Amino acid sequence: MIDKERLFGSLMRLGEIGRTASGGVTRLALSDLDRQGVELISDLMVEAGLVVRMDEAGNLIGRREGRIAHAPAVLTGSHSDTVQEGGRFDGALGILGAIEAVRCMNEAGIVTDHPIEIYAYRDEEGCRFAASYSGSRIVTGRFEPARLTKADAEGVTVADALTALGLDPAQVARAARSPDTVKAHVELHIEQGCVLERMGAPVGVVTGICASARGRITLTGEAMHAGTTPMSMRRDPMAAAAVVIQMIEAEANRTGTTVATVGTLRTFPGGVNVIPRQVEFSLDCRDLSETVRDGVLERIAARMDEICAQRDIDVHMEIYSRGIGKLCSPEVQAAIRRSCDRAGVKSIVLPSGAGHDSGSFYDFCPMGMIFVRSRDGISHNPAEWSSPEDCAAGAEVLYHTLLELAGTHGARPRTAAPADEFTNS
Amino acid sequence: MIDKERLFGSLMRLGEIGRTASGGVTRLALSDLDRQGVELISDLMVEAGLVVRMDEAGNLIGRREGRIAHAPAVLTGSHSDTVQEGGRFDGALGILGAIEAVRCMNEAGIVTDHPIEIYAYRDEEGCRFAASYSGSRIVTGRFEPARLTKADAEGVTVADALTALGLDPAQVARAARSPDTVKAHVELHIEQGCVLERMGAPVGVVTGICASARGRITLTGEAMHAGTTPMSMRRDPMAAAAVVIQMIEAEANRTGTTVATVGTLRTFPGGVNVIPRQVEFSLDCRDLSETVRDGVLERIAARMDEICAQRDIDVHMEIYSRGIGKLCSPEVQAAIRRSCDRAGVKSIVLPSGAGHDSGSFYDFCPMGMIFVRSRDGISHNPAEWSSPEDCAAGAEVLYHTLLELAGTHGARPRTAAPADEFTNS
Repeated sequence: MIDKERLFGSLMRLGEIGRTASGGVTRLALSDLDRQGVELISDLMVEAGLVVRMDEAGNLIGRREGRIAHAPAVLTGSHSDTVQEGGRFDGALGILGAIEAVRCMNEAGIVTDHPIEIYAYRDEEGCRFAASYSGSRIVTGRFEPARLTKADAEGVTVADALTALGLDPAQVARAARSPDTVKAHVELHIEQGCVLERMGAPVGVVTGICASARGRITLTGEAMHAGTTPMSMRRDPMAAAAVVIQMIEAEANRTGTTVATVGTLRTFPGGVNVIPRQVEFSLDCRDLSETVRDGVLERIAARMDEICAQRDIDVHMEIYSRGIGKLCSPEVQAAIRRSCDRAGVKSIVLPSGAGHDSGSFYDFCPMGMIFVRSRDGISHNPAEWSSPEDCAAGAEVLYHTLLELAGTHGARPRTAAPADEFTNS
Repeated sequence: MIDKERLFGSLMRLGEIGRTASGGVTRLALSDLDRQGVELISDLMVEAGLVVRMDEAGNLIGRREGRIAHAPAVLTGSHSDTVQEGGRFDGALGILGAIEAVRCMNEAGIVTDHPIEIYAYRDEEGCRFAASYSGSRIVTGRFEPARLTKADAEGVTVADALTALGLDPAQVARAARSPDTVKAHVELHIEQGCVLERMGAPVGVVTGICASARGRITLTGEAMHAGTTPMSMRRDPMAAAAVVIQMIEAEANRTGTTVATVGTLRTFPGGVNVIPRQVEFSLDCRDLSETVRDGVLERIAARMDEICAQRDIDVHMEIYSRGIGKLCSPEVQAAIRRSCDRAGVKSIVLPSGAGHDSGSFYDFCPMGMIFVRSRDGISHNPAEWSSPEDCAAGAEVLYHTLLELAGTHGARPRTAAPADEFTNS
């Protein structure tokens, strides 16, 4: 039912907007290239027979009416923006896959009980104005007015950028939906990880968005001469950090679900022949359960204190951000699993280690996510790739999920195509 | 016998030349400030009754004749230059301590069998022209002509700097001594480490200058998303580096004499939420025995290969410099130990982890070194400090060592002071 070529053609077409010399895509949030991308999305929505509007936050919405008047809508979609030198699938697949699913409904002449609305959310990546998921946060009533004055690297504020798009910054909060108007939210997205590939599954049923924590650990000893200081007289924070980092890995492994990463490390003063005075490194720790994650962080802190006390090293650990786990609702997960069966698509169940717009909906309405396999797990990179077959498989699972969530109890084939573009009416 | 105040006064006086705002001293090799320092040293040598000359490499030499005509000389001294923002003791103590020792010989009316020559070596630190121990290397016949064209950060070459001091770059190699003219070399120097302080000894008898090796280790895995990549699917070079660095520490500890240091470490790309693709770190490894050190390096390489093979991490280890151990001669060490007893100074025996001008003499003549306790082990820093008492203790040990090495079999009190400044004639 899903037209693989048509879907992939849309993905490649949108990926031309903001295309960079390296083959990547740069459509930063609320930029002119982002506007051009959203315009193409709007055209495709109109072609799919959707009623298109833009809300006060700049999110584009394409609505397909249902059979029951005033019924809450099933929301789907993803974000229109990309990171600097990003890929053609992150965000785009969720919007274009949903448009493709709606086209198939049109072609099958299906009318759902509930309306379906496809969102193209603005400013998910947060790489221009340093705050993520802005569009979907506003939709779910989490608008922060202070955000309007945040400026990008060129000094352009969010308010300036909204104005340039013809929007009124004073009205942004009005993009919030009432929960009464929303039945569920389901998002199709590339995995951005390697689990589906390693497990040989094109599609994943997401259990939730992990609770992430980020911190900075500083170990302080004494800078001494690398040649004149015997091993027994050292207070070497680098040697201590080595033990600590190995312990962090072991503590994450112990739970079987947690991930912990030391991505940056610096030594001070940083000379070949100087025992460092100080070592500073980052810690990124995630688990679907914030309780499990916090337990890991507590054990890391306690064992680090022991390790450093033995070595006379001072420890400072600062967890500067600590999110909560955002579970996908069991009903939506079950609907997605059934949809995989209907579509004949092999799937596995997995958490999302990365954040997504769907996270904004975790306490707003039942929500769920469908993942599509990423080649080599690469994302936020020109090499980001999901095959046409996998994209189509994900869109087909979305199609069945939308039908189940929106309901087809009163479904009947339409007698005539409502517009010319419906070839299989 | 040693005049503590007089010695410390000279140290403070020399330390005024090149004094910086932070209280440090900057007299870079062959600079005008270095020239001013050498001029003061020359004045002090003349005051001490020495016959002063400058050799073709710019080393200043103050000679005290002995009783036996044409007998080989006992050489002593140290370097006149300092690092950027160095201290008042590194180098200076060896020159001024030797001048003080000669003054005491004068005051005691002692004539030694062999002549004594005090060298103020040029360009030991190597921080201006990126090569160390230049003055003493030329004296021991290790002149490298290519060195003359080496430029400092401002583009001034060694040849330029020598010319500015009134020297002829074409004649530099003539500063080499014939080994026939040298009986032994003994150098007084601050320890630049914390061993004497920890052991409660003002003076150290140096066993040799450690064989140092420096290298760079690069571990390469795969950059992946810190959130979406389960622990079991990672090729994390930072986690591997942690195991390797702990192993390096253990391998150094195993010998009881080796030191090994990881002073710098960098992660690439270096993002909080990115598993690094690559980690690069330095390795500094030293032991008095290059055989022991090389054994440690081999075990490090072998165990690192095992660790990284298990983790599917690529390893590259490059040892880009590999020196040899330069043992102090047993006779000079024994003379220093007896001198400590004569002076009533508590001493311990220890290797030098840092390099010194004495290293240039290891295969040229019998050589030895006397260390003086450094407060907190700090050197190459404005906070470098050795107490007046410890400096005097070191100078007194040097005095006795020079007397033993130069011989006093025919010693008799002089009947008259050869110059006015000898107060105790």
